[in-house]
Amino acid sequence: MESGKEEKKEEAEEEELSVEWKFEEEEVPSWRKQLTIRAFGVSFLLSVMFCVIVMKLDLTTGIIPSLNVSAGLLGFFFVKTWTKVIAKSGLLRQPFTRQENTVVQTCVVASSGIAFSGGFGSYLLGMSQRIAQQSEHTKDVFHYKNPALGWMIGFLFVVSFLGLFSVVPLRKIMIIDFKLTYPTGTATAHLINCFHTPEGAKIAKKQLRELGKFFSFSILWGFFQWFFTAGKDCGFASFPTFGLKAYKYKFYFDFSTTYVGVGMICPHIVNVSVLVGGILSGGIMWPLIENKKGDWYPADISPSSLQGLQGYKVFIGISMILGDGLYNFFKVLSQTLPCLFFKFHERNANMQIPVVENPSPSIKAQSYDDQRRTQLFLNDRIPNWLTIGGYVTIATISTATLPHIFHYLKWYHIIVIYTFAPTIAFCKAFGSGLTDWSLAPTYGKLAIFTIGVMMNIVSSASDLMQDFKTGHLTLASPRSMFVSQIIGTAMGCVISPCVFWIFYKAFPHLGNPTSEYPAPFATVYYNMAKLGVEGFSALPKNCLKLCYAFFAAAILINLIRDCLGKKRSWFIPLPIAMAIPFYSGPDFAIDMCVGSLILYTWQKVNKAKADAFGPAVASGLICGDGMWTLPSSVLALAGVKPPICMKFISRATNRKVDKFLEP
Amino acid sequence: MESGKEEKKEEAEEEELSVEWKFEEEEVPSWRKQLTIRAFGVSFLLSVMFCVIVMKLDLTTGIIPSLNVSAGLLGFFFVKTWTKVIAKSGLLRQPFTRQENTVVQTCVVASSGIAFSGGFGSYLLGMSQRIAQQSEHTKDVFHYKNPALGWMIGFLFVVSFLGLFSVVPLRKIMIIDFKLTYPTGTATAHLINCFHTPEGAKIAKKQLRELGKFFSFSILWGFFQWFFTAGKDCGFASFPTFGLKAYKYKFYFDFSTTYVGVGMICPHIVNVSVLVGGILSGGIMWPLIENKKGDWYPADISPSSLQGLQGYKVFIGISMILGDGLYNFFKVLSQTLPCLFFKFHERNANMQIPVVENPSPSIKAQSYDDQRRTQLFLNDRIPNWLTIGGYVTIATISTATLPHIFHYLKWYHIIVIYTFAPTIAFCKAFGSGLTDWSLAPTYGKLAIFTIGVMMNIVSSASDLMQDFKTGHLTLASPRSMFVSQIIGTAMGCVISPCVFWIFYKAFPHLGNPTSEYPAPFATVYYNMAKLGVEGFSALPKNCLKLCYAFFAAAILINLIRDCLGKKRSWFIPLPIAMAIPFYSGPDFAIDMCVGSLILYTWQKVNKAKADAFGPAVASGLICGDGMWTLPSSVLALAGVKPPICMKFISRATNRKVDKFLEP
Repeated sequence: MESGKEEKKEEAEEEELSVEWKFEEEEVPSWRKQLTIRAFGVSFLLSVMFCVIVMKLDLTTGIIPSLNVSAGLLGFFFVKTWTKVIAKSGLLRQPFTRQENTVVQTCVVASSGIAFSGGFGSYLLGMSQRIAQQSEHTKDVFHYKNPALGWMIGFLFVVSFLGLFSVVPLRKIMIIDFKLTYPTGTATAHLINCFHTPEGAKIAKKQLRELGKFFSFSILWGFFQWFFTAGKDCGFASFPTFGLKAYKYKFYFDFSTTYVGVGMICPHIVNVSVLVGGILSGGIMWPLIENKKGDWYPADISPSSLQGLQGYKVFIGISMILGDGLYNFFKVLSQTLPCLFFKFHERNANMQIPVVENPSPSIKAQSYDDQRRTQLFLNDRIPNWLTIGGYVTIATISTATLPHIFHYLKWYHIIVIYTFAPTIAFCKAFGSGLTDWSLAPTYGKLAIFTIGVMMNIVSSASDLMQDFKTGHLTLASPRSMFVSQIIGTAMGCVISPCVFWIFYKAFPHLGNPTSEYPAPFATVYYNMAKLGVEGFSALPKNCLKLCYAFFAAAILINLIRDCLGKKRSWFIPLPIAMAIPFYSGPDFAIDMCVGSLILYTWQKVNKAKADAFGPAVASGLICGDGMWTLPSSVLALAGVKPPICMKFISRATNRKVDKFLEP
Repeated sequence: MESGKEEKKEEAEEEELSVEWKFEEEEVPSWRKQLTIRAFGVSFLLSVMFCVIVMKLDLTTGIIPSLNVSAGLLGFFFVKTWTKVIAKSGLLRQPFTRQENTVVQTCVVASSGIAFSGGFGSYLLGMSQRIAQQSEHTKDVFHYKNPALGWMIGFLFVVSFLGLFSVVPLRKIMIIDFKLTYPTGTATAHLINCFHTPEGAKIAKKQLRELGKFFSFSILWGFFQWFFTAGKDCGFASFPTFGLKAYKYKFYFDFSTTYVGVGMICPHIVNVSVLVGGILSGGIMWPLIENKKGDWYPADISPSSLQGLQGYKVFIGISMILGDGLYNFFKVLSQTLPCLFFKFHERNANMQIPVVENPSPSIKAQSYDDQRRTQLFLNDRIPNWLTIGGYVTIATISTATLPHIFHYLKWYHIIVIYTFAPTIAFCKAFGSGLTDWSLAPTYGKLAIFTIGVMMNIVSSASDLMQDFKTGHLTLASPRSMFVSQIIGTAMGCVISPCVFWIFYKAFPHLGNPTSEYPAPFATVYYNMAKLGVEGFSALPKNCLKLCYAFFAAAILINLIRDCLGKKRSWFIPLPIAMAIPFYSGPDFAIDMCVGSLILYTWQKVNKAKADAFGPAVASGLICGDGMWTLPSSVLALAGVKPPICMKFISRATNRKVDKFLEP
């Protein structure tokens, strides 16, 4: 009796700890059945939506928060609604499973990932005439390639699939043998698993309601704001919250719900870092440098010229990003290599002693989950000849076609890149699997990879690995993951250029630093490329010295952060986050801090609720505002202009204007 | 045993029902001890505050909601804080009692009442040159009397005390014999009694926190708004929420927290009526009449001239107010007289059968309360010779001095007024004691009394009676009530003119219909007076016909409302509330409806919470915004001007302005 009770208790404990126990009665559909038409229908809708949002973020500041939670929530919501409606009509043949949800998630992430890694906000736009013209002061620029729908889609197709094929053979080593954590993938899997339990579904419903509420608010607010933006410096986006002088240096709250939401998702330290960077640059340095006008740089220069103040802004920002990037590259390398060595060693050891002795209940429970997951993960194999063959085929096609798209790119350049890419992709996929490097996505997926095409490969490789992890934890077949990735990537290759094209056509000032869409990284990329060709001779006085100083400072701050450890360095800002407002101004930093403040207050008032609903509210704010850009660009394309200008002028100017307007 | 139990149960029930049981152990201080210095200190502070608020409301639209709740809450809060601080220092000699709280309440109501009944927003300002000049189109106006601090204080002193003395002898008849309900007085007493029970104090504390929160928000919002108001049509108060065309007809949300708060206090039907009136006038009638420009009235006339559109606005509004006033006057008279007769009859009957036979427990409990209250109420008598002597003395002084202040007023005019005043005062005091006429304060204390000086007397008389009722229910001595009234009135006679003077000096456009403080009733009074002298000849074409129509409509709507009964007429708007936006435009109607909407939504979400905290939140909003006018007028007096103009212009104008401003 006694032992029976204990056994039962143990079992209960096991059940508590094991996720797969809960789903034991649920049959796992075959990998073909996981790939339903409804899943891809929903994926397509969500892909378009996230593509618009990511593109908007990319073109305004380049900070993109992790949208996995909202993708998960919305994917769940749409397929659930779909199946409910169908179930009512009595035609439902297949219930909505976790695996299907994972397929949707994977497809959406792959497709909207292209919007970022495709480089529309960075190198693709950086090559355009618009960016080149505003950086040079002469009108005769030679080296540019203007975006066009045709070559962009072609380029993405020959480039984007390489990452996919390059890491598939490694999935078993990474996930089963190395047991890498992949924080994002794990979190997504946890979310999806949670949705499909009864309690989880209830919470998800509530979260969805919050998301919907703030989505509607955000989209309505965007619509309302639109009416007041007839002209330059009109509307809420130019609201001089802290006065006109502060506005001149871009210190104002611009009422963008997007960045308030981003601030709610990003950790407080990122928001504070951005603000610190904004104050340091816009509040202290630029005014000081402006005082040197006529001494450090010619006084009669156009404000957008890189020979003037703008040059300091761009190049100091670049040097900080480079400093941070370099530091992190070597740091990750120095951590990855020993770790890799250790893991290989461990793997060999594990293979010799497959049975763990004397397991505690928790390990046992883990083992049940692990066993079941591993079994299913290894069941559906993807043959190596397929992936390697695929890689070689695509690499060949792309080597043949790319030089036709970019004339200065030679075939041997491409072969060099494609030989190294899988190695770097492996490193990144491994790095993002370790907990230590998990900060990268919270940094806001900043573009730290300087080699354009490679960025695409590397980034999609690590995304795929995250998805494999998610699939592993939700019992989705690797095959269905792979197919979903391929379909998602294909969608992204078409959707992203189209969305970018709408933006590019609808907003002719795209890329102009004072416009609604400054696309800061496009200018950064252009100037980095130019710097590489022309050298430092064109920089204004003392700019190079300042660049060296900030480059060193970025490395130093990182070093101090790492020396102090995570806990004791909570007050030291992140250099990469500080660098962004150097170029794009501190206005969005204030939005993000407002978001941080809202979340902080909410957590103080009701921590449980804030933690449960904060991400949903933030997603609602971001998605709503992002969605508004779609109708707003349609309005712009259709030539419908807002009727009112909400203008902010000083008292003296107002007197003049009133006199001028008097009949 | 059984009967003992029952007895106990009965007692418990009695305790439940009886308020005075709860306070039985508390000693009632003598009337001299109820009048403490701290009470009057707090009263003075609150008087200034409410004076500013009432004055602001009076000068913007003339709608003044009942501020009794906030006065009660704040009075309780200040004295409680005072006694707590003193108690900590160990110097507290006397605890804070209900009676003292009633004294504060009475004093504040008496004093801030002067701000309204003193006629600063209506007849005093109506006599000024500013109002006369904007109504006439010639600059040579003869009959005006500009406000000056000296004569205003003198005038108030000789006039304001009359109402007080005229009703004091009647207090026993009204309260003890007639047992009139006096809804406002009863509500206030209930509030004060509630504050002094432990549970009540807890709720009051929470309410105060809400009030404080929204007070701070409101005052900060006012401060923030100020920065953007450099110039005419600048700032949030000119925000064309529904577009520029709607703004032209004053349809916009002007972000005034005051009227949002007012909307939360006023019943929904009042807010809806105001909006209906606004739509009818500003949305339909004025645009139609404007089309007749050149036909009905000369096209080249100035927009503020009464011979033009402005004339229609003012006179149609006046005729509706007159229609409503007349209807209500006769209605109340027809209800009061039979009621009065009945009550006198009842009183005589009651005097013959003083013992009620076979009382139910609830009646018994009532009786205990009644006995105790009546006993204390009758204990401290105010000798009739004092009040009658006082009335005669003040009437004599005022008859002698008033003709010196207003030269066209002859001494026999004044004697006639002073003979009739007590009668009307009695009628009003009786009328407001009946439940049926209790709607009057919720109407927003609209100025429906056309005889300037008399308004002062009549209105303070009924206020005093309300206070006596409050005192009766909180065991405060009638003597302390009377003294507190006198001190409060004296305070009001000094504070109100001073506050008005600050407004008058700080805002030189006071009374101008397009300014921040249009003081609509000043123009209404001026024009009513002018109408009385000049007749209808000066009115524009068809104006008189429309006036007759709306006069009749006002009476008809009232009649229909009364015929259908309260329940079935909930959807029929109140004519008096509809009339206000005819003259002052529908902008505040939208604010009020926003307030109504907020309260409605809140009630849907959480009825209990909305009912408990709605008035506190509304008071916070009103008081905060009202308080901001004090620093804002100080800034105006000191010549500090806001730095930024938030301007709203059409796209076409903006293009012109941008070109003009280009360097």
